[in-house]
Amino acid sequence: MARVDLNCDLGESFGRYTLGLDDQVIPLVSSVNIACGMHAGDPVVMRRTVKAAAAAHVALGAHPGYPDLQGFGRRNMALSPDEAYAFVLYQIGALQGFCLAEGTRLHHVKPHGQLYNTAAKDRALAQAIAAAVHDFDPNLVLVALAGGELARAGEEAGLTVAQEFFADRNYTDDGTLVPRTQPDATLSDEKFAVARAVRAVKEGAIKSISGKTIAVRADTICTHGDNAHALEFVRGLRAALGEADVDIMPAGAKA
Amino acid sequence: MARVDLNCDLGESFGRYTLGLDDQVIPLVSSVNIACGMHAGDPVVMRRTVKAAAAAHVALGAHPGYPDLQGFGRRNMALSPDEAYAFVLYQIGALQGFCLAEGTRLHHVKPHGQLYNTAAKDRALAQAIAAAVHDFDPNLVLVALAGGELARAGEEAGLTVAQEFFADRNYTDDGTLVPRTQPDATLSDEKFAVARAVRAVKEGAIKSISGKTIAVRADTICTHGDNAHALEFVRGLRAALGEADVDIMPAGAKA
Amino acid sequence: MARVDLNCDLGESFGRYTLGLDDQVIPLVSSVNIACGMHAGDPVVMRRTVKAAAAAHVALGAHPGYPDLQGFGRRNMALSPDEAYAFVLYQIGALQGFCLAEGTRLHHVKPHGQLYNTAAKDRALAQAIAAAVHDFDPNLVLVALAGGELARAGEEAGLTVAQEFFADRNYTDDGTLVPRTQPDATLSDEKFAVARAVRAVKEGAIKSISGKTIAVRADTICTHGDNAHALEFVRGLRAALGEADVDIMPAGAKA
Amino acid sequence: MARVDLNCDLGESFGRYTLGLDDQVIPLVSSVNIACGMHAGDPVVMRRTVKAAAAAHVALGAHPGYPDLQGFGRRNMALSPDEAYAFVLYQIGALQGFCLAEGTRLHHVKPHGQLYNTAAKDRALAQAIAAAVHDFDPNLVLVALAGGELARAGEEAGLTVAQEFFADRNYTDDGTLVPRTQPDATLSDEKFAVARAVRAVKEGAIKSISGKTIAVRADTICTHGDNAHALEFVRGLRAALGEADVDIMPAGAKA
Repeated sequence: MARVDLNCDLGESFGRYTLGLDDQVIPLVSSVNIACGMHAGDPVVMRRTVKAAAAAHVALGAHPGYPDLQGFGRRNMALSPDEAYAFVLYQIGALQGFCLAEGTRLHHVKPHGQLYNTAAKDRALAQAIAAAVHDFDPNLVLVALAGGELARAGEEAGLTVAQEFFADRNYTDDGTLVPRTQPDATLSDEKFAVARAVRAVKEGAIKSISGKTIAVRADTICTHGDNAHALEFVRGLRAALGEADVDIMPAGAKA
Repeated sequence: MARVDLNCDLGESFGRYTLGLDDQVIPLVSSVNIACGMHAGDPVVMRRTVKAAAAAHVALGAHPGYPDLQGFGRRNMALSPDEAYAFVLYQIGALQGFCLAEGTRLHHVKPHGQLYNTAAKDRALAQAIAAAVHDFDPNLVLVALAGGELARAGEEAGLTVAQEFFADRNYTDDGTLVPRTQPDATLSDEKFAVARAVRAVKEGAIKSISGKTIAVRADTICTHGDNAHALEFVRGLRAALGEADVDIMPAGAKA
Repeated sequence: MARVDLNCDLGESFGRYTLGLDDQVIPLVSSVNIACGMHAGDPVVMRRTVKAAAAAHVALGAHPGYPDLQGFGRRNMALSPDEAYAFVLYQIGALQGFCLAEGTRLHHVKPHGQLYNTAAKDRALAQAIAAAVHDFDPNLVLVALAGGELARAGEEAGLTVAQEFFADRNYTDDGTLVPRTQPDATLSDEKFAVARAVRAVKEGAIKSISGKTIAVRADTICTHGDNAHALEFVRGLRAALGEADVDIMPAGAKA
Repeated sequence: MARVDLNCDLGESFGRYTLGLDDQVIPLVSSVNIACGMHAGDPVVMRRTVKAAAAAHVALGAHPGYPDLQGFGRRNMALSPDEAYAFVLYQIGALQGFCLAEGTRLHHVKPHGQLYNTAAKDRALAQAIAAAVHDFDPNLVLVALAGGELARAGEEAGLTVAQEFFADRNYTDDGTLVPRTQPDATLSDEKFAVARAVRAVKEGAIKSISGKTIAVRADTICTHGDNAHALEFVRGLRAALGEADVDIMPAGAKA
């Protein structure tokens, strides 16, 4: 039977600042990526988020980002591979502390924002991130853009890699995401988006932006919990996957 | 045979800024307390410091502090016990990441600066710190001011507590440190300081500032590696302990 | 004719994080206190906020706080008077940069959160803040808790001081605020709160929590723009002040 | 008579961390660039540095950098032009606060590290920085790499631009610096470096790395105060400029 993971970023609040409908999105997904205090999140938020995720029995992941709270980790930052290794390892460890205290365990790592985007293209950065994950715990799952350098580096490092599909983004003919700088970067037709995601999971293929059929991997699908509309999309996606007999479960878990 | 631990703060550099003669002090001590990125240290420094400490086979400890890099964790900050718990847990976890990657393990936790001082007097803060250490790993040793609230909270939480003696500070008649705001806070006569430390270890007693004999615990002695003079003091202390047949080894370790 | 200033904290967003209904509260007040990047706010937010405030012709003030973004400046932090002087001066200057670029000028300074609270009681801290304001520009108005140490230090430094009244807080018999740790810290009856504020402005007197009539100064009233309910309260207060023939205008301005 | 400015970065200490021999280099230069708290420096350090510079009657400049203390502003960071404008304006304003308090005035702005380097090549970033300087005070001098985009943007914005020459760096045939990634980036022969700098000032020409004579502008020369060796170089440069009848004075000042 087909299966897929639904993942969502979580714990992006900071101090007095609240972000995301965490409590509402947790029941809708099978895994969560928890911010680790560099681009978002703080120790108090992390503790609360780990508690909530553990209670809901979703798979817990670290969501390390560039050390740039003001830019929310969305700006490129020229960290050397060695620096990236150290910053990623630091963040995984910090989150693991809360997992240990709650009697749960870390399941995966998904880099955040521009660290994720750059690692999909930059081999040296990808290798540094994969090494940090592996050196921390070789049993962790690495979540990476399907077909990108990070997915490749993770596999070369011997990690289980969950290749990620973006339900709301258009793909080029060669299987990469249409850049956000272009007008057609995101899909506007949500029904189409849901149907396309189901096909990606079941057939490993979708239509690119030009209408060509291309191969895609969809071990895990990125979802969002920012607002009520985003939650509605996840609910629709869950329903469609259910109707198509797709199991929703963490990547890498025994079926 | 008598034994004592010599501990030293380490890894307090940050980015472009270098602090401490880490490489020179490591061979002189039996345990090190490594800054975790809040009051000092950064991921790159932490990785380098853990490597160096692991290579030298000293006991590695986390040295969590208040989140105040500009104040170097030396200013009081009114964190609630819950906040303190989360910030301490975060920092222990972050350091543990580097220990795992280097194939070594965390041995102890010693709070830094004002977090250490306030926890010695504030029961709720002390309990929060002890709980964070215990929830992370109940086998960790907690280093705390001898006779203070943190030592007490650690013992109540079931942790092994290493009570700390300050070789360079004067003590009041009731066994607390003479505050730094007073002129006689520190000892100026280093020979006397060394002899007093040896007596503290062997006999559990020293002369207070008023000349009265008082009981002290000295499971571990705080040393410094800031400058050449500080290193010289540690060398003198080691020599005197050796002549007095005192073993220098990590607190809590099997003799 | 009676007059009073209505002030509100503004520009407390940070990077990806949004806080406060700034655009909606600006038209309701006569002066705004803009966060300066230490406890809240960032350069991008400050620029936008200064633009909006300048366009609305409200009086612009700097709102310096403790350097503690995670704690939103609401935790006590033991800065020395010299440190406080430097941190306040830095923040006033930073905001002034945006005022100059927008062709407007800085009108006042109101410390934020725990810096404000501590300065109301701690003479040395109050003097340091007053000195920083005065050394930057002796024509700036200093907003301070009515009757507190900061108000006194400001007057001694030769500054125009706007003594602040809190419409939503209960007062003790000796004219200080009932601490937030007590159940009756805030007023629940908004009609009473509005009527009490009008009386404070017109008669310089209110009923304390015990029912005793006490003297108060109300050069400026603290209002909030956090949510729709807070905005409604400001509207009610404005209406009541208007009916009572009280002019709403910046403190220190020529009537 | 020929003239040139000698500038040096200053005030790069932070909290417990000390960097640079500020007191020793101040008497050797005619202008200083003071870190503003983003890549280095803090309010306490800025106050002390402004005092020292004002007392020595050197020209005071703001030295804004990327908001990256851990990276010391030396890593590229993808700030948008609008973000860069706001971060530069913020830092200039913050430093100006200390100048006002000390009764002195700001003379120039020189971006730091990677902000400087990127602005020399990136037109949009250069224009944003020039606009921030101009909007703050059109009388400020902008220090920029000779012949780069920032120098051009400054001139287009109507600012006085001081084109900067690097005494210790090799130049390519087209007048740009040999990148630090290449082995010959810096000059090893200090006598040659001094003679070349004097020629750059007096004749506006130097030999490139290939031996070709190329035109250069040298309104100001970058010097360093990091260590005793760097100070010695500045002393040698001053002596050689004096023998060549070159006046050492701030750029843009009336001779």
